[in-house]
Amino acid sequence: MEDLQKMHNQIVEWLNEIVPIIKRSLSEELKIEIKRDRKDLVTNIDKMVQDFLIQKITEAYPTHMIIGEESQELIISDNREHVWIIDPIDGTANFVKQQDHFCILIAYYENDIGKLGYIFDVMNDDLYYAIENNGAFLNNEKLPSPEEISLQEGLISGDIRDWVGKECLERLAEESFDIRYFGCGGIDSIHVITGKFAAFATSKSGPWDLAAQLIFAKELGLKVSHFNGSHLHYLDRGDWILSNKGAFDDLIEILKGW
Amino acid sequence: MEDLQKMHNQIVEWLNEIVPIIKRSLSEELKIEIKRDRKDLVTNIDKMVQDFLIQKITEAYPTHMIIGEESQELIISDNREHVWIIDPIDGTANFVKQQDHFCILIAYYENDIGKLGYIFDVMNDDLYYAIENNGAFLNNEKLPSPEEISLQEGLISGDIRDWVGKECLERLAEESFDIRYFGCGGIDSIHVITGKFAAFATSKSGPWDLAAQLIFAKELGLKVSHFNGSHLHYLDRGDWILSNKGAFDDLIEILKGW
Repeated sequence: MEDLQKMHNQIVEWLNEIVPIIKRSLSEELKIEIKRDRKDLVTNIDKMVQDFLIQKITEAYPTHMIIGEESQELIISDNREHVWIIDPIDGTANFVKQQDHFCILIAYYENDIGKLGYIFDVMNDDLYYAIENNGAFLNNEKLPSPEEISLQEGLISGDIRDWVGKECLERLAEESFDIRYFGCGGIDSIHVITGKFAAFATSKSGPWDLAAQLIFAKELGLKVSHFNGSHLHYLDRGDWILSNKGAFDDLIEILKGW
Repeated sequence: MEDLQKMHNQIVEWLNEIVPIIKRSLSEELKIEIKRDRKDLVTNIDKMVQDFLIQKITEAYPTHMIIGEESQELIISDNREHVWIIDPIDGTANFVKQQDHFCILIAYYENDIGKLGYIFDVMNDDLYYAIENNGAFLNNEKLPSPEEISLQEGLISGDIRDWVGKECLERLAEESFDIRYFGCGGIDSIHVITGKFAAFATSKSGPWDLAAQLIFAKELGLKVSHFNGSHLHYLDRGDWILSNKGAFDDLIEILKGW
């Protein structure tokens, strides 16, 4: 725990160093590149933030493995003693088009056990973090476990674009209280973590989109799984859900038809 | 203009008086009632804010007509010399479930001409307003007209629950950059006003949902219409769209199939 606290303090320092730089970048012209298709963007700022974090981690912990969304190569070796997973800008489309509703995601795992998770909501200056066996926090205030929310009473967030035409979207719209979507998995997840949404479900993810949230889920008594209800590992890809306990069973019943 | 400036100053005073009371109410237990169906809520705070605004308007302008979302009766007389339209809490579901992403909407019309429009984003303390022939403002800073955004490059917001299963949702998801939804027409509209979204489209509205936005649209060069492209009057009900100029024609081409 003492070591974790030291790492935590370092990570907070790094974040406090890079966040003002990201904010200043909003007044400059972005260099935007297209990745897999016209809707999948990366900017010079994504790369700058990733380089910054990789440099800081490597300086402090030269033997640790680092997985980043914008890495040229994704190294997943068998040695998973110390693994960092980072998404330098989660919600790049929002970053480009809204200059809001994007975040930095960082997770640290030891031997496949989640130790530290971070979601930094940049424009609100809100740092959410979770420390194994120690709870989850917003700006150093401990977060309570969200009260149970049923599917019927809950707001459900999902990456709508991938859901259109599917029967499960019709069922979600009908059976939940209503649908919402910020368009940034980290920001949508914050709303589940704080009990504002009953769940966030997304069909296309990499480890950097979910590794931090798994640690929050454990500390706050939230549920995580693939759409078919199977166990979610922090290095998994594809579909997954972060859900309030009260809505989870009904949601999985719908999502398994995805 | 002098009279409008005086009215504007009054309205800002009223808002500055009621907003802290709304915020304090978030720490107290809400009285929630169901209106037309289980997804249509009203709280004691909606009613308190509406009563407050009606009292202020009536004291200052006893002969003016007032239309409010939570009024017991909706009076639309032939005398439309001075008409106020208010939504005391736009986004009541968000108010109840998120304690965020809700707003106060106020519009003032003279002889069917929009004079003053207000969107107060309560939790961000952001007051957006528009004054006829004078521009639109955020907290007294003049807002620029948003740059043109094409449908292909733009984020589109819509009340998803009513769109599921419709071909136009599939086309929107495919042809736009992506879909978003805050679940509060006023907050979604702010994102069109500030150029963060290309459009906000909603299928079920009353005058209180759109009267203020019509005034912003005129001042900022945004487009408004029904889904079929026909003229939108501030007392209309039903479907309507607030759109960036660059996306409007392509959107109407899709929405007319709604």
